[in-house]
Amino acid sequence: MQDALVQFLLRTTTQDSAHDIGHLHRVWRNAQIIADQEPPSDRVVLLHAAYLHDLVNLPKSHPNRANASAISAEKAKLFLRDQGLSSAQIDATCHAIVAHSFSANVSPQTLEAKIIQDADRIEALGAVGLARCFAVSGALGRPLFDPADPFATTRALDDQSFAIDHFAVKLLRLPDTMQTTSGRDLAAQRADILRTYLDDLAQELNFPVSGW
Amino acid sequence: MQDALVQFLLRTTTQDSAHDIGHLHRVWRNAQIIADQEPPSDRVVLLHAAYLHDLVNLPKSHPNRANASAISAEKAKLFLRDQGLSSAQIDATCHAIVAHSFSANVSPQTLEAKIIQDADRIEALGAVGLARCFAVSGALGRPLFDPADPFATTRALDDQSFAIDHFAVKLLRLPDTMQTTSGRDLAAQRADILRTYLDDLAQELNFPVSGW
Repeated sequence: MQDALVQFLLRTTTQDSAHDIGHLHRVWRNAQIIADQEPPSDRVVLLHAAYLHDLVNLPKSHPNRANASAISAEKAKLFLRDQGLSSAQIDATCHAIVAHSFSANVSPQTLEAKIIQDADRIEALGAVGLARCFAVSGALGRPLFDPADPFATTRALDDQSFAIDHFAVKLLRLPDTMQTTSGRDLAAQRADILRTYLDDLAQELNFPVSGW
Repeated sequence: MQDALVQFLLRTTTQDSAHDIGHLHRVWRNAQIIADQEPPSDRVVLLHAAYLHDLVNLPKSHPNRANASAISAEKAKLFLRDQGLSSAQIDATCHAIVAHSFSANVSPQTLEAKIIQDADRIEALGAVGLARCFAVSGALGRPLFDPADPFATTRALDDQSFAIDHFAVKLLRLPDTMQTTSGRDLAAQRADILRTYLDDLAQELNFPVSGW
């Protein structure tokens, strides 16, 4: 099943460095780690939602971005039928795909949808999230931090101007948005990797450790 | 003296995210941390070499890149005279500027030149070096790692293709190139931050920890 998914994705989507097949493998892995500690859930639904959640991925600036996850779910349906999923499983997979998205603002109603949303958000944290955050900043030509006030003690946070401001504006708040207990635990561990990073950075820059 | 240097730099150079005034402040700070643990050195020379070492910064692809540090030293001379440095101090500062560069391949002959070379190389390590490495990869549109074999156990290292390969190809080797004992100690601490990062990443990717 996983092989069929990967072949389908390689055939039908274009990869970029923040949304490559590696991201999908990791979301599936996160989903399994979380699911192992939650009440029973449908692994077939989780598998398909993990691999198909970004089937249509529109840039942040795209006017239709809030609908991207609904379009992904629609596009996934035919493939899910071909794979022999039941109608209930197809509906559950599609709901998890729609609800994973930040911009769609749809509440996850099922355990599977909650697990997928958590599994995807965890990707913005930890060692992987750290690398992705700085890579995005580099691609946008955005400075890594404000040399005069890296931890924004005397200025407003501004993650459009400085990469590490994004930690305070969004990343370190993600654990509070988690839908499952085990997702929250995993997010907290991965947020600690970002906090340790900020401590190391503070020491190197000779600025007091941030209270983020 | 430091203010005059900063004003001069803001007036005569263009800043980019990897070579901004923050980089120069940190090289000066690293130089002082190292100098405090070495035999006496000329702090006026260290201060000026730290701030002026990248006065002329040519891109990696520029045919004249190996001469950039010599051109920087030449350009610094007039300013150093205006600042009232002695001839011996000017020569010592210029030698440290020339010898700091990897591409120039000039051995540092004085303690001050050794300290400056170490202080600058340490910038590629630690939390700062981590952020710079991923930002550069993002700017080049280069993947962060190979999802199939992130730690290159079954393929050749290739830091033109994957950001973290640069850790093994260059960054983790920098401590061995250090010229001073305290520079080597500081580089080793900062290299440990990269190693801890790789351990965290290995765990998240579910690949055996790299032996890098």
